[in-house]
Amino acid sequence: MALVVVNVMPKPEILDPQGKAVTGALTRMGHQGFSVRQGRRFEIQVEGEVTKARLEEIREFAESLLANTVIEDFEVVS
Amino acid sequence: MALVVVNVMPKPEILDPQGKAVTGALTRMGHQGFSVRQGRRFEIQVEGEVTKARLEEIREFAESLLANTVIEDFEVVS
Repeated sequence: MALVVVNVMPKPEILDPQGKAVTGALTRMGHQGFSVRQGRRFEIQVEGEVTKARLEEIREFAESLLANTVIEDFEVVS
Repeated sequence: MALVVVNVMPKPEILDPQGKAVTGALTRMGHQGFSVRQGRRFEIQVEGEVTKARLEEIREFAESLLANTVIEDFEVVS
């Protein structure tokens, strides 16, 4: 078993209401100077070896299933 | 501006319905041999230098605001 991580974040030009809410809450609580964006982290346990083909498969389903690429960017980290 | 990341994941012993749904969808789509857990990723832009005190501040609000430590683990990555 090997771990591959897929990070999905809102595109820079897209408003991020969740991140804005966190940033606002921090400011109200006295934590100044932080700007937060919120995305999703997928930890994927892969049976067997993480081959090039396996990584390509993960990249494909990250694009089609895990991320909404109209408004989100994703990266595959292995 | 420097980037600090906070990853929040469901604890291993906690059921993860979102991850289970993704794993199930992958299997139905013919992607075998993957087990997915889904969490949240916070990208925090920090004004000025990321000092030890600043990192400690982030760790504190990650624990109190970003994660629900009853059911989630978090890590601060700088």
